Amino acid sequence: MKKLGILLLLIAATNLWSLAQTVSIGSPSGKIILNFTIKNGNPVYTLSYKGKTVIEESNLGFKIKDMPEFGNTFTLENKVTEMGVNQPWTPVWGETKTIENNYNMLQVTLKDNAPQAHTLIIVFKVYEDGLGFRYEFPEQANLQHFIISEELTSFNLTGDHKIWWIPGDFDTNEYAYYTSKISDVEKKTQKRDGNIFTATPIQGSFVQTPLMIKSPEGIYMNIHEAALINYPCMDLKFDVTTYNATATLAPDAVGNKAYLRAPAKTPWRTIVVSDDAREILASKMILNLNEPNKLKDVSYIKPMKYVGIWLEMHLGISTWDYAGSQSASDAGSDGKTVKKTKHGATTESTKKYIDFAAANGFGGVLVEGWNTGWEDWFGKWKEDVFDFVTPYPDFDVKEVNKYAQSKNVGIITHHETSGSVTNYERYMDTAYRQMAALGSHALKSGYVGKIIPRGEYHDGQWMVNHYLRAISKASDHQIMVTAHEPVRPTGLHRTYPNFMAAEAARGQEFNFWSDGNPPEHETILPFTRIMGGPMDYTPGIFKIKKSFYIPGAKEQVHTTLAKQLALYVTLYSPVQMVTDLPENYLAKPDAFQFIKDVAVDWDDTKILLAEPGDFIATARKAKGTRNWFVGGITDEQARTMEIDFSFLDKGQKYTLTIYKDAADASWDNNPEAYAIETIVVTSKTKLKVNLARGGGFAMSIFPKK
Amino acid sequence: MKKLGILLLLIAATNLWSLAQTVSIGSPSGKIILNFTIKNGNPVYTLSYKGKTVIEESNLGFKIKDMPEFGNTFTLENKVTEMGVNQPWTPVWGETKTIENNYNMLQVTLKDNAPQAHTLIIVFKVYEDGLGFRYEFPEQANLQHFIISEELTSFNLTGDHKIWWIPGDFDTNEYAYYTSKISDVEKKTQKRDGNIFTATPIQGSFVQTPLMIKSPEGIYMNIHEAALINYPCMDLKFDVTTYNATATLAPDAVGNKAYLRAPAKTPWRTIVVSDDAREILASKMILNLNEPNKLKDVSYIKPMKYVGIWLEMHLGISTWDYAGSQSASDAGSDGKTVKKTKHGATTESTKKYIDFAAANGFGGVLVEGWNTGWEDWFGKWKEDVFDFVTPYPDFDVKEVNKYAQSKNVGIITHHETSGSVTNYERYMDTAYRQMAALGSHALKSGYVGKIIPRGEYHDGQWMVNHYLRAISKASDHQIMVTAHEPVRPTGLHRTYPNFMAAEAARGQEFNFWSDGNPPEHETILPFTRIMGGPMDYTPGIFKIKKSFYIPGAKEQVHTTLAKQLALYVTLYSPVQMVTDLPENYLAKPDAFQFIKDVAVDWDDTKILLAEPGDFIATARKAKGTRNWFVGGITDEQARTMEIDFSFLDKGQKYTLTIYKDAADASWDNNPEAYAIETIVVTSKTKLKVNLARGGGFAMSIFPKK
Repeated sequence: MKKLGILLLLIAATNLWSLAQTVSIGSPSGKIILNFTIKNGNPVYTLSYKGKTVIEESNLGFKIKDMPEFGNTFTLENKVTEMGVNQPWTPVWGETKTIENNYNMLQVTLKDNAPQAHTLIIVFKVYEDGLGFRYEFPEQANLQHFIISEELTSFNLTGDHKIWWIPGDFDTNEYAYYTSKISDVEKKTQKRDGNIFTATPIQGSFVQTPLMIKSPEGIYMNIHEAALINYPCMDLKFDVTTYNATATLAPDAVGNKAYLRAPAKTPWRTIVVSDDAREILASKMILNLNEPNKLKDVSYIKPMKYVGIWLEMHLGISTWDYAGSQSASDAGSDGKTVKKTKHGATTESTKKYIDFAAANGFGGVLVEGWNTGWEDWFGKWKEDVFDFVTPYPDFDVKEVNKYAQSKNVGIITHHETSGSVTNYERYMDTAYRQMAALGSHALKSGYVGKIIPRGEYHDGQWMVNHYLRAISKASDHQIMVTAHEPVRPTGLHRTYPNFMAAEAARGQEFNFWSDGNPPEHETILPFTRIMGGPMDYTPGIFKIKKSFYIPGAKEQVHTTLAKQLALYVTLYSPVQMVTDLPENYLAKPDAFQFIKDVAVDWDDTKILLAEPGDFIATARKAKGTRNWFVGGITDEQARTMEIDFSFLDKGQKYTLTIYKDAADASWDNNPEAYAIETIVVTSKTKLKVNLARGGGFAMSIFPKK
Repeated sequence: MKKLGILLLLIAATNLWSLAQTVSIGSPSGKIILNFTIKNGNPVYTLSYKGKTVIEESNLGFKIKDMPEFGNTFTLENKVTEMGVNQPWTPVWGETKTIENNYNMLQVTLKDNAPQAHTLIIVFKVYEDGLGFRYEFPEQANLQHFIISEELTSFNLTGDHKIWWIPGDFDTNEYAYYTSKISDVEKKTQKRDGNIFTATPIQGSFVQTPLMIKSPEGIYMNIHEAALINYPCMDLKFDVTTYNATATLAPDAVGNKAYLRAPAKTPWRTIVVSDDAREILASKMILNLNEPNKLKDVSYIKPMKYVGIWLEMHLGISTWDYAGSQSASDAGSDGKTVKKTKHGATTESTKKYIDFAAANGFGGVLVEGWNTGWEDWFGKWKEDVFDFVTPYPDFDVKEVNKYAQSKNVGIITHHETSGSVTNYERYMDTAYRQMAALGSHALKSGYVGKIIPRGEYHDGQWMVNHYLRAISKASDHQIMVTAHEPVRPTGLHRTYPNFMAAEAARGQEFNFWSDGNPPEHETILPFTRIMGGPMDYTPGIFKIKKSFYIPGAKEQVHTTLAKQLALYVTLYSPVQMVTDLPENYLAKPDAFQFIKDVAVDWDDTKILLAEPGDFIATARKAKGTRNWFVGGITDEQARTMEIDFSFLDKGQKYTLTIYKDAADASWDNNPEAYAIETIVVTSKTKLKVNLARGGGFAMSIFPKK
C-alpha cells in the first residue's frame, strides 16, 4: 500500500527543545509531552498529559546476552524529528471508515563507549491520544546476531493507582479481571483462577497488558504494545512500593527472550492517555503504529456473523470426538475409533446449520470436531494429535463445503492444534491447500494446551512468529484467520487484514464450565484485551442457565439476554458468532431480529458512555448505510443511561427499536426477561434507558423512509 | 515383508529353568546365558559367556514422572519363551547376501502392587553373539500417557576393563576416541576436543554407545542399542568404583526423557559378546533386532560411489556461499548477496564433476552450497536460514539434474539444516517434492549447530523422531538419505533401507581443519560407531597434506594413501565418497584404479584380522560376482599381516592386485608413497603384507579367466 502524503511541519520551542542531553517532543496540540534524557549513560523518559506528569522518570534499553558492555554509557549521537505527520488511511474493515493518523516523531540515536561501540535508536511517536515508542538496532559492525536477555523499559506511575488487570502469565490470558490498587497485585494473585487448563503464572506482582489504569485525578492510561513481530510478548512487573512497572518478556525454552539480527526493530510500547475514558476506547493509536496493509489480495476478506457446531459440545449435547467421549481409552490401539454416543460434526447436522445461516443472513458455519484425533487430544502434551485434513467418517468435508457454497455460506474450518505447533506446522501447507481447494476461506485455529516445542510458551518469540506465519501463509491461500489461545493482539490486523479476530482473553465459554465471567467482565474487555484488536467473544446467548439442559447445573451466563444483544455492538469484532442453538433463537424471533439486523463492519463509531468495570455505551454506523446500532451494558449494578442521539443525521427521522431488560430482569434472578419497543427518534432525541443488574440494551436505528 | 517361517523348539533345563522368581535362557548353543530375577521387587539380570559372568547383577526398569508408585514392588506375573527361532532374511543391500537370525526368546510380564497396579514386559533375545532386551508397556488401565523420567537399565561390568569410548554428549559424536580403563573416564574427559562446534558434554564419567569393552581375560563386549524409535538416545554413566554403567537418556528442553503412550516399546539394549574380536565386527544382532523392511518400493535404492563439490570448500579452494565468504556482513540487509570470490556449486563446475563421475562409473555427484542461505548460517542459533528449494543464481538446478541423468549419474541434493529443524520441517514436503520432480533420488542432510526447537538436543526423543520422519517422508518421494550430525544409528536401515548411511562420528573431514583423526581412529570406528550402521566417512584422499594447497598448513590426513584405499573395504557403507579432487585422482591413475574397481554392495564378508585400536583386515565379495576386495589397516604401529585366502573358491585362480604402502612410507613422513603389484592367488595362498605406520593395503581379486 502506498504511503499517504506526509505533511512535515517544523514546530518551535513549545514542542521541541534540546538542552544538554534532554530532548522533548509534544503531541500535535501539545497536550501530551514526552521528555527524553540520558542519565548516567542510561536513556530515560517521562510523559506528561495536560501539564501533569503521568509517567515519571522511567528506564529504556536492554541487557544483551554475553554483552555486559552494551549500553550503560550511552550518549546522544543524533536526533531527528518529523512534525505534524498526517497519514489518514482506510482500513479493509473496522470501526470507522477512515482512520486519522497524526503525530509528531522524535528519533534519537544513542552510542555507547564500549571498546566496540554499539548503536541503539529509539523512535517516539506522540499522538493526541498517547505515546508509542520502539527500539531499533541499526546494522552495525559490533552487533549482528544477538540475544535479548532483558528489556529495561519501564512505566513509572505516579502513585498507587487503580488498575484493571490479569495476572502475569506466559501461557494464557483467560483470567477473570481483577480491579485493585497496584499495591494489592501480589496479594490478589495468590488466589488464582483454577479453571484455566494451561496456565504458567509468574510469581510476584506481575500483570499483563493491555493494562488499564486510572489515577485519583481521573486520568486514564492504557499500557500495551503494537506490532508484536519476531519478539516475545511483554508482561509488566510492578514494584509495589514505587509503582514502577518494568517490561518482562516471555522467555523461550532455555530462558532467552529474543533472538535478533541487526537491523531489527522491537514492537512499539504504547501508552494511551486521556482524562475521558471514552477516548481510550476510541483510540486508534495502536493500529496506527502498525504497518499498512501488506496483502495485495483482500477480495476474500469479509466480516461476518456466523453460527457453529460448538456450543452444543459445551452443553454436553454432542461431542467433538467421533467415539462420543474424550477418553483416550475409547481409541483402539490400532488408532481406530469406536462410535459410542453422539458426535456433533456430522454432515447432516452441518447442513442444518448451513440452512439456518442461509435463512438468517449469516455468512459462516463453524464446524468443530470434524477431523480425526479428538479421542485423545487433551492435556497430554502429545505431539502427534491432529492431521488437519482427515475428516471423521460421518463428515463429508467436500459435500458440506459444496452445500454451504450453494447457499452462499462459507464453512469456517477448525484447526485445534492442542498446542502441538511443531505438528501443526508440518501439516499447515497441506491443510491450507485443502481448505483452498474446498473453497473454505475462514479458519478458526486453537492452541489449547502446553506448547510443543516443549518449553516454549504461548507468548514467547517462537510462538509469536508462528501465529504470524500462520496468518501470512493463510493469506496465500485466501483464508481469514481467527485464532483462539494465541498471544493477545497488538493491532497487526492493520497489516494483515485477513487476521480477523482472536480470543486471547476470557471468552463467553467460561460461563459454560466454570464460575464464569462476572457481570463486569464485558465492561473491562474493551479497555484491556480489545485495545489490541477484535475479540471472538461469542455473544448472543438466549438460554442463560445451563440448568436448561442439565437439571441442577450451576453454570450460567452472567448477563441478561438484552446484554447479550448489546455485546454485538460494545465488543467490536468483524466476526461475531451467533452463538446459541438455532432452536433458542427460533423460540424468540423478536429478540433474534436484532442479531439478524446488526452489522459487523462500520463506517463510524461513537463511544457514548464509558467507565472501565462499570458501563459502556457505544453507537456504530453500519458500513455503507445510514443505519446505526447502539449497545449499552452495565456491570452488577443496575443503572440508568441517558443516550444522546446527536450522532444521527440532522433533520432525519429514524425508527429505533430497543431491546432492553424487562423491569424485573436481573442477570442472576431473571436474566431472560426482555422488552422490545419501537419509537421514532432524531438527532435531538435524548433517551433514558434502565439497565438491570448485569443487564444492557441494544438498539437498531434505521432511517425512516 | 512377510515374516519368514519361525521354527519353535522347546529346549529343556540346560537353557531354561524357573526357580522362585528366577528365570534363565541361553543362546541356541548355550554359550551365552541370561538370568533374570526379581530382587526386592526390582527386576535385575546377569549375563554369562562360556560360563563366565560378563554382566553382574544389573538393574532393569524405569522411573515414571509423577508416578513414584510405579515399579519397586514387581512380581513375575507371567513368562513366555520361544526357543530356536530361525528367521534368515535378505537385506536390500548389505555386507552379506543373507543374514542369519537365530535366537531364543524370553518374555517376562511384571506387575507391581501399587494401589493402581502397573504392568511392564521385558523381552530378552539371546543370540550366539549376544543379548538384546527391550521393555514393553502394554495397554493398561493405569498407564496411558506417561513420561519417562529415568531408565534404570544398567550394565554392571566385572572389573576395570579396557574401553574404547567417546565422552557422553547429547549433541555430538564427533570426538576422537579415548582408550582407557573405566576408572580413567572422568579424568580423561576433563580435556575435551575443542574442534567440535556444537557439543554438550555431560560432566562426570559419561560415555557414549556403541561402547567397546575388553576384559583382562580377553572377552570383548559391545554395548549399544537397536531400533531407536520414539525414544531418546542412551549414553552410559559409569560408577568408576563398581564399573557399573547406567543408562542416561538425552533429556528434552524441560528435562523429561520420553513421552510415551501405552502400548509402547523401548529400543533394544544390546550386548554383543565374544572372545574373538572378529566376531564382534561380524555380528548382525543389532540389525536382527530391528523390524523387517517396511518400504514397499525399493527400486530407487542403489548403493553407490559418489564424487562431490565438498572437499574443495574444506581446502579453501571455493566456498559454500555465493558471496564468497561465510560472513553475515556480506549479506545485504535486503537479504540479497553480493558475489566477491569463488562459489563452488556452479552449474559449470557441477557438470565437470558429472563428467568425471560418468567417466569412472560413479553413481552420484554431491553438491553442497547450491541453495541460498550460506552467507549467514553458521553458529547463530538462527531459525530462518535455508529454504531448501531456492538455488543460487549460478546454479541451474534443473539443468544440472537433467545433465546428470543424461549421463546416468544422480545428483545428491544437500540439505544443511544448521540444526534449525523447525525450519526444515516446514519446508520438507516442498523440498522433497522438488527433488522428486527433478529426479534427484539421494539426499545428504546436515545438522550442524544447536538444535531449534531451542533446548532440544540432537539425541533427544524429539530429534530421534525427526530423523525417522525425514527418512520415512523421503521414502514417499523415492529418496535415499544419508544424514550428517544425526543421532548415531541403531540398525534402522534394516527397516528403512533408504536410510543409507550416517555420519554421527568423527569423519575424515576433521583431518582438514583440526588436529585430525589419529592413525588408530579407523581401527576403532567399526567396533564402535559402525556397530549401529554404515558411516559416510568420505575416504580416498590422495593428497594427504593440506600444505599442498595452503603453504605452511599443518592439517593432514593421518594415514598413508594405501590406507585410504583400504578404508573402502574396512569401513562398510553402501555409499562411499570418492572424496579427493578429480585432478588428484587423474594424477595417479594406477592407484585410482582400485577406487574405480571396488564394490559398495556385497554378497559376503569375512573379518580376517581385528583388534580394536590396532588393526583390521576385511575381505568382501562384490554383489553378484566372484570378485573379492580386501582391505587391511593398522594404527600408528607398522605391522605385518598374514592374509589367508581360504575364503576364495577352491581350485580357482585369481588375479590379485595389491595397493600397499611403499617400503619407506609412513603416515607422517611419507604418506603418499605406495606400490602396486599383481600376482596370482588361490584359496591356498597365504600372503604377508607389510603395513607402514598409519598404513594399510587394498586388494582387488578377480577370477582369472
